[in-house]
Amino acid sequence: MGISERTAIRIKRLEIQGARNIAKKGLEALAADARASKARTGKAFMKELEAKAKKLATARPTEPALRNGLNIVLKEAQMAEGLGESQRAAVRAAKAYTAEMKSAIDEIARIGSKRIRNGDTVMTHCHSSSVMAVLKKAKADGRKFSVVCTETRPRFQGRMTAKELLRAKIPVTMIVDSAARRFMNNADLLLIGADAVTSEGFVINKIGTGQICLAAQEAKTMVGCTCETFKFDPITLAGDWEPIEVRDTKEIWAKPPKGLRMRNPAFDLTPPDLIDFLITEEGVISPFEAGIIMREKYA
Amino acid sequence: MGISERTAIRIKRLEIQGARNIAKKGLEALAADARASKARTGKAFMKELEAKAKKLATARPTEPALRNGLNIVLKEAQMAEGLGESQRAAVRAAKAYTAEMKSAIDEIARIGSKRIRNGDTVMTHCHSSSVMAVLKKAKADGRKFSVVCTETRPRFQGRMTAKELLRAKIPVTMIVDSAARRFMNNADLLLIGADAVTSEGFVINKIGTGQICLAAQEAKTMVGCTCETFKFDPITLAGDWEPIEVRDTKEIWAKPPKGLRMRNPAFDLTPPDLIDFLITEEGVISPFEAGIIMREKYA
Amino acid sequence: MGISERTAIRIKRLEIQGARNIAKKGLEALAADARASKARTGKAFMKELEAKAKKLATARPTEPALRNGLNIVLKEAQMAEGLGESQRAAVRAAKAYTAEMKSAIDEIARIGSKRIRNGDTVMTHCHSSSVMAVLKKAKADGRKFSVVCTETRPRFQGRMTAKELLRAKIPVTMIVDSAARRFMNNADLLLIGADAVTSEGFVINKIGTGQICLAAQEAKTMVGCTCETFKFDPITLAGDWEPIEVRDTKEIWAKPPKGLRMRNPAFDLTPPDLIDFLITEEGVISPFEAGIIMREKYA
Amino acid sequence: MGISERTAIRIKRLEIQGARNIAKKGLEALAADARASKARTGKAFMKELEAKAKKLATARPTEPALRNGLNIVLKEAQMAEGLGESQRAAVRAAKAYTAEMKSAIDEIARIGSKRIRNGDTVMTHCHSSSVMAVLKKAKADGRKFSVVCTETRPRFQGRMTAKELLRAKIPVTMIVDSAARRFMNNADLLLIGADAVTSEGFVINKIGTGQICLAAQEAKTMVGCTCETFKFDPITLAGDWEPIEVRDTKEIWAKPPKGLRMRNPAFDLTPPDLIDFLITEEGVISPFEAGIIMREKYA
Amino acid sequence: MGISERTAIRIKRLEIQGARNIAKKGLEALAADARASKARTGKAFMKELEAKAKKLATARPTEPALRNGLNIVLKEAQMAEGLGESQRAAVRAAKAYTAEMKSAIDEIARIGSKRIRNGDTVMTHCHSSSVMAVLKKAKADGRKFSVVCTETRPRFQGRMTAKELLRAKIPVTMIVDSAARRFMNNADLLLIGADAVTSEGFVINKIGTGQICLAAQEAKTMVGCTCETFKFDPITLAGDWEPIEVRDTKEIWAKPPKGLRMRNPAFDLTPPDLIDFLITEEGVISPFEAGIIMREKYA
Amino acid sequence: MGISERTAIRIKRLEIQGARNIAKKGLEALAADARASKARTGKAFMKELEAKAKKLATARPTEPALRNGLNIVLKEAQMAEGLGESQRAAVRAAKAYTAEMKSAIDEIARIGSKRIRNGDTVMTHCHSSSVMAVLKKAKADGRKFSVVCTETRPRFQGRMTAKELLRAKIPVTMIVDSAARRFMNNADLLLIGADAVTSEGFVINKIGTGQICLAAQEAKTMVGCTCETFKFDPITLAGDWEPIEVRDTKEIWAKPPKGLRMRNPAFDLTPPDLIDFLITEEGVISPFEAGIIMREKYA
Repeated sequence: MGISERTAIRIKRLEIQGARNIAKKGLEALAADARASKARTGKAFMKELEAKAKKLATARPTEPALRNGLNIVLKEAQMAEGLGESQRAAVRAAKAYTAEMKSAIDEIARIGSKRIRNGDTVMTHCHSSSVMAVLKKAKADGRKFSVVCTETRPRFQGRMTAKELLRAKIPVTMIVDSAARRFMNNADLLLIGADAVTSEGFVINKIGTGQICLAAQEAKTMVGCTCETFKFDPITLAGDWEPIEVRDTKEIWAKPPKGLRMRNPAFDLTPPDLIDFLITEEGVISPFEAGIIMREKYA
Repeated sequence: MGISERTAIRIKRLEIQGARNIAKKGLEALAADARASKARTGKAFMKELEAKAKKLATARPTEPALRNGLNIVLKEAQMAEGLGESQRAAVRAAKAYTAEMKSAIDEIARIGSKRIRNGDTVMTHCHSSSVMAVLKKAKADGRKFSVVCTETRPRFQGRMTAKELLRAKIPVTMIVDSAARRFMNNADLLLIGADAVTSEGFVINKIGTGQICLAAQEAKTMVGCTCETFKFDPITLAGDWEPIEVRDTKEIWAKPPKGLRMRNPAFDLTPPDLIDFLITEEGVISPFEAGIIMREKYA
Repeated sequence: MGISERTAIRIKRLEIQGARNIAKKGLEALAADARASKARTGKAFMKELEAKAKKLATARPTEPALRNGLNIVLKEAQMAEGLGESQRAAVRAAKAYTAEMKSAIDEIARIGSKRIRNGDTVMTHCHSSSVMAVLKKAKADGRKFSVVCTETRPRFQGRMTAKELLRAKIPVTMIVDSAARRFMNNADLLLIGADAVTSEGFVINKIGTGQICLAAQEAKTMVGCTCETFKFDPITLAGDWEPIEVRDTKEIWAKPPKGLRMRNPAFDLTPPDLIDFLITEEGVISPFEAGIIMREKYA
Repeated sequence: MGISERTAIRIKRLEIQGARNIAKKGLEALAADARASKARTGKAFMKELEAKAKKLATARPTEPALRNGLNIVLKEAQMAEGLGESQRAAVRAAKAYTAEMKSAIDEIARIGSKRIRNGDTVMTHCHSSSVMAVLKKAKADGRKFSVVCTETRPRFQGRMTAKELLRAKIPVTMIVDSAARRFMNNADLLLIGADAVTSEGFVINKIGTGQICLAAQEAKTMVGCTCETFKFDPITLAGDWEPIEVRDTKEIWAKPPKGLRMRNPAFDLTPPDLIDFLITEEGVISPFEAGIIMREKYA
Repeated sequence: MGISERTAIRIKRLEIQGARNIAKKGLEALAADARASKARTGKAFMKELEAKAKKLATARPTEPALRNGLNIVLKEAQMAEGLGESQRAAVRAAKAYTAEMKSAIDEIARIGSKRIRNGDTVMTHCHSSSVMAVLKKAKADGRKFSVVCTETRPRFQGRMTAKELLRAKIPVTMIVDSAARRFMNNADLLLIGADAVTSEGFVINKIGTGQICLAAQEAKTMVGCTCETFKFDPITLAGDWEPIEVRDTKEIWAKPPKGLRMRNPAFDLTPPDLIDFLITEEGVISPFEAGIIMREKYA
Repeated sequence: MGISERTAIRIKRLEIQGARNIAKKGLEALAADARASKARTGKAFMKELEAKAKKLATARPTEPALRNGLNIVLKEAQMAEGLGESQRAAVRAAKAYTAEMKSAIDEIARIGSKRIRNGDTVMTHCHSSSVMAVLKKAKADGRKFSVVCTETRPRFQGRMTAKELLRAKIPVTMIVDSAARRFMNNADLLLIGADAVTSEGFVINKIGTGQICLAAQEAKTMVGCTCETFKFDPITLAGDWEPIEVRDTKEIWAKPPKGLRMRNPAFDLTPPDLIDFLITEEGVISPFEAGIIMREKYA
């Protein structure tokens, strides 16, 4: 079993988590396997690489950042001539992609920071590394603001958010997920992350996001979504619905009474009309423009 | 210290819970104290009774059912002539009120049951004894339906709901509170309880209710609210906002990191335009009619 | 078989149509049977009367005007003492009810006429005798206005509307049902009838009404509904959903291809927030007030 | 010419302004004329009184408070027996009505004051004596809050509002009418007065009210309307649209260029679903309940 | 008279119907005329070709697919050098365009099929060949779903839809157009075709589409629109409103009473915010992106 | 002090007004200074030019048309080689930009004119030169329509609009800003200008625009916005909020009572979902497409 296969298993087991981290680890694994490949011909190499990429791509369903990266690596390897060149192209492409992911989040932080004003109350849900980057950059830029974060059931990622913000000396108030509407009138901005964006502009993010965005719309609170463009998912352009991971119901109730059914989707869909703007590394845009950018980048 | 005072303390400490139970225990305590009073004159008795009633009334802020009952007892005692008659009137009124509470919930079950149709999926939030009564009556009436219940953070009252429904052989699926919008399109009816109803028709119920009702409106799912008219709160007719109990934040996170603020309101407000009908013991009405009934009953 | 039973059959067969006409014919039949009864005792008479009333009441499901009338007749007969008095009471009550229905529509015409202004374009759907009465009264009162009517599939009752308006010299334009939204921006008032009103304020009227009211709301066109209070249905106050008649699918397509399913509900539900006012014989009110009036009249 | 006729002229010329003041002065005039009447018979007196009342009633179109008062006076006079008794009844009724108007506003202040919380920002439009009474009572009750008021074109009544609030030491910020939506997110409550309320719950108030209420709904800002029940207009129950006064266009532009048309309605209609509650002297109710109260009081 | 002229007449007489079919027959006619032209110079040929194209383009107003094709043919012919080359270019371009129309619908079927899930209820309106292609492809792909179709007055195109689906063994239920809102809560997807899309994203489709989309939005039912990009109409980019064909009113009522006006627009406008996604041959996009694609393709 | 500095002062003092005029005068000043520069090296020249451009750019905050022009001039000067060439490039670029501004407005007039139909009532707010151009072109094109314009407090720019339209023989009716909702049902089109458009599609225009657009949405009145693409502001793409100029409060009330606070923002934000289309010189597009065009043009 190669590194890719083992990494796929670790992703499946949630030993590796977070869209960006999963993509990074997945691509590093594929690059390592490419470098170490014992294939004799370019064709054999490609077949091998494709098989490994597929393993990684299907480890978890809602991971366009990884899928987009794998596709780019495969394409670059394919376009190179000769076995050696193909191997080197795969490694180079994987590195380039992870480097771009890194610079994208820095750029998002730089752009998004300007959206945080002195005195703002920013609400957020779950734990998003790009939302964290924006808030910490705004703090570094000297802005004074406070954050309201949900606890984010069932896995309490809001606690990570709270701790990280406290470490950054950003005042933070925690509420239960159900209280978001209650505190929405006091919020100036709702800032959420994204696991995927579809070609028609729907944002896939942690379960509860849609509900909170609905409450934001009701209260005329601006909604921003930080999202690297490599989370734009071209399979939706081709007609697929974005797959939604359904997770173990033990996360909800470890020892439920016999006979109780539970449902535990990890993500939900927020329609673009509930989101005022996406903060991408290419700038602030409307979610309705995602399809055009996806066509440019991936079609 | 009399029984009323001790009961007030137990209510404050949450040893007695649930709007109906609190009202019942509070009135029984007041009746016991009335019976055992050592006052020498009607006037002294009334002063004593009023003091005890006030202790009970202020034990927890959002308890109109108790407050309405106490007011009726005081009024009846006041209108009776002579000490002995006044004591007996207080006891009688307390008994009558608790009896009416019992018959009200039976009537609500009888009325509300007809709203559950074969094949329905009913969503509910938190644990409401009148919602439970309706669902169990519908089951007893031979209707086949299933329930989706939220877990209801922070105190997981949804687990009580799930257990009670399972005991009644009603199929039930549990979701996290944040997933309500995700499953709303499949629901035929959202059925919630109420802790209080204001004169302009707002429903005060467990935190999260407003958010879920908003999701129901978005999906054109009917929203019904079971509510005895003794939860209609006449202090709102007189201008007060319904007080909202704020509870210990340890309920959210027992050992939070230092510096973390938390907010834990127990209830929220749902505006009447998000609720299609109230199921009261006097029939199915619009929440917009609450003020008229309140004027009739309590003004 | 008595007159009531024969009338029930004629109602079932649609030989008698229209909420008011059905109620009138049904009550006349019951009165006739009451007068001709050969019962020997008051008790026997009541039993007979109740059986006949039930036949009439169940001839078609969505007929509160008839049901309310039958209930009043039964109650009056019940309250009278002795066989003869009971018979006379039944006859008197039936007459009184039909007389009230007549005067109610006159009053509605008088009240509703004031809502039609010079230069107005009034849209209507289906054929409602009370809407007709309002429009003809407005014409008689000297107002100049025009009407847009839908054809009203599947039975083209809009053609009756068009003919009746043309006879009254009121300019009328017919459109297909689907074109209502297209012409809504030009309409000053949407005026519809009702077959039943529920205690929470929903209006039951010809299929398509809800859709057109939705289009009216979108275009900020006022929506008025003419409705005698004897169409307010007290069974909804007691928890029942208003039953919706489902009719023969041949009305949609007389000779459909084999295997085609069709669905033909005669009525739909319009929520009270889509209706600005009810024009009743007791005045112009909000649909949200229907439950209060129902409690006064029938509870 | 009697006092009533002269008063009617002064009302028409805007020498007497404000719904309450107009009603007061109108009723005092009618009472004076009633007292001084030289009629020889009760019938002649009534004829005279009715003529005078009509003059007053038609001085300005949108004045239900005056109209309701005049009707009560006429009814009381009518019901009294004999000329002298009839005169006395008219005088008594006029006095009683003006006294009730006074106590109503005090009661509204007392009730409404509770709706102002410490720290609130209250937005208002135009100048309403009952809104002023509420705000000043809240200040007297020790609440700390600030007000945002519009200037209220074309006659700048907002300046009266600003001055009166400054005198009462209530902090106030003035904006142009068009800026209401811009500042709505910061407002906790929009508090408006009313010139009339219709039986279906529409509020007639200074032009611009509807627009600002729409902005309040968009931002989920609560909307309260202070309104004595004698402004509930029973002519709307009987089918009439509330008449809307159209005023001199010179108010908009004193010396407009030739050929310019201008339109200057003094009031507009706000639908009940844009208003959360009415603060009346009988308590806080939903605007949807206005019709029921109107039926009780005036039908 | 050439073939183009005769074809234009047949289009006008509805002997040729359906946006795609009209475009195909129109372009074939123009190609045939181009081939058979007796013009002596390129300039004369172009003049002739333009005249014929104009005849075809104006045969019916709402036909962008034909107009776009004709413009491409004219442009290609214009750009070619010399008479013969110009003729050949016209023929080639016409062929290429009809071929692309064919492949576009296949691509739409392939993409759209993925949007149909097992167990779905899909609602549709009128008869659209691209909707039919999607549904049949989904069936071929093994998905199990059912369809609700409207009858589509005035010309009952829903019957064509029903027959075609039954032939494809897809279960189908027919309802009257007015019943769409009634059955919307049970629908998982509303799938409609388009006759034209404007640069700002409005969809022009069979009368009734806007109303049904409004009902879908109310019930949070997803709305997809199948639409080849050659139906994107560049005249709207240049400012024109999309022309809407108004058809013979005999379609509504063949023998109406004298004096009855009727209005029979064939299409209506659905704003982009009522449509979740367009399924084009270039992928699934938001309707708000239509203008960008139109600029790329036709500007 | 150079011409640029003096022009910046005149812009600041409002001696030069209107987005297009400010841009024109600013660029002419910069071009004159570029031509007259005494710099000895290209580098020195660029430093000088940048300093002057900055003065102009910061004269007033909400002026993207000027800012975009200045940036283009700087870029062209930078890209030219050698001092002389650099000077000439600056002058050429400034001229080209002002020429494009002129042709853009002509193109917008040509395109927008087609959106005005015979018989239309067009509402507008404030005074926009591009709206004026559209309306006058429509008049010149023979269309018969009328205009409703607001007076536009605090500076009554509506009077300029009214005068200009009267001179063009276009019938015009003036209303106070607060009356816009009242007359919206009669309007067929709301046509507004723009001072800036953000990358996510928000339109920045005269205070009040958002409120009127909200009223237009409520009444389903189409909203068009005339806007040259050089008002699309790329700083928003980079994360900045569009700065909103706050003006002297004396504009609201010249001699306010002591202690009165006033707020006078010149512009407000209208979200893209309240605007149906932008009329740009590149065609009619959705406001949601602004970000894509901005990326093409300025990124």
